[in-house]
Amino acid sequence: MNFLEEKILSDGIVKEGNVLKVDSFLNHQLDIDVIRQIAYELKSRFRDVEVTKVLTIEASGIAIATMMGDIREVPVVFAKKHETVNSTDDKYVSAAYSFTQRRENHVFVSKPYLSRDDRVLIVDDFLADGEAAHALIDIVHQAGAQVVGIGVAIEKASQQGGRRLRDEGYRVESVANIESMDFETQTIRFVESD
Amino acid sequence: MNFLEEKILSDGIVKEGNVLKVDSFLNHQLDIDVIRQIAYELKSRFRDVEVTKVLTIEASGIAIATMMGDIREVPVVFAKKHETVNSTDDKYVSAAYSFTQRRENHVFVSKPYLSRDDRVLIVDDFLADGEAAHALIDIVHQAGAQVVGIGVAIEKASQQGGRRLRDEGYRVESVANIESMDFETQTIRFVESD
Repeated sequence: MNFLEEKILSDGIVKEGNVLKVDSFLNHQLDIDVIRQIAYELKSRFRDVEVTKVLTIEASGIAIATMMGDIREVPVVFAKKHETVNSTDDKYVSAAYSFTQRRENHVFVSKPYLSRDDRVLIVDDFLADGEAAHALIDIVHQAGAQVVGIGVAIEKASQQGGRRLRDEGYRVESVANIESMDFETQTIRFVESD
Repeated sequence: MNFLEEKILSDGIVKEGNVLKVDSFLNHQLDIDVIRQIAYELKSRFRDVEVTKVLTIEASGIAIATMMGDIREVPVVFAKKHETVNSTDDKYVSAAYSFTQRRENHVFVSKPYLSRDDRVLIVDDFLADGEAAHALIDIVHQAGAQVVGIGVAIEKASQQGGRRLRDEGYRVESVANIESMDFETQTIRFVESD
């Protein structure tokens, strides 16, 4: 069991509806030691990959992305979310349905910040249904750039987003990969790593 | 002129309505060298202050706050924004009017992440009217904790938020302090530092 799986077992809370609450260290309060360690682990997993830009989505992906950008010495771009986007002249726009917010958000990146030469590493705190990741991939492709990998802190294997992305040929790395959770017993099982 | 003032002159764009666009390096794309340097500068300005927690507000404050937390080795909390907050049982809630979004947002922090022993350094990318800073101060006070300082990357002196906070007795440090901007000539004047 790695550091993040141990942290999830000690500090994560399983809520009804297959929800994992980790806002004591990952997405409301930030335990910077954990965030830094996640960034180093993702650096190690993608050490053979050339990266020119780290891309994430506001808000809770920004901390990990900032650390990744610091460690890999590349710029970070965070996609912005809005319910509506008026002008698309100067933006790459995609849409992602948020299951937690129960609505569709427009996701966008201003055109100057992604170019066709970019080799983009997408990072985020969670990968569940893969809605956000697919929106970011769409934006990278609109820019004519290449997605070289997707690195996340926590994957929820039961929601299939990671499986679909791997089936589509993307390299996906998750530091902790949750196989199942049980609210009644507060047990969390992880996918065994190789 | 310091590094951030130089960066603003070279890469910032003055828009109509007294708006400074710095999203090429500060709040959409992140130039990590600049973000790190801002964090070190704020560390230096507050070097005599004991800090137990860094507090910011989503989304664009998170990168600077993450770096500050890393450098000062304290946890970071980012306040969340919503148009509505259903339950206030487990949250400290305040309100801030956003002039850019032209609406009032509820701003909240879950109660476990601020305690009466905390000595809180508030950080953000911009300080203009001071709406966000006042909401964060309100939240810190609801928790019975102490605001030990407010550190921002860019202050817009003409919008008076910084002056009001200083008049109220808060220690406010801004890495770049803009006295005036002119859209027609694209000139930016900074407040002379001591």
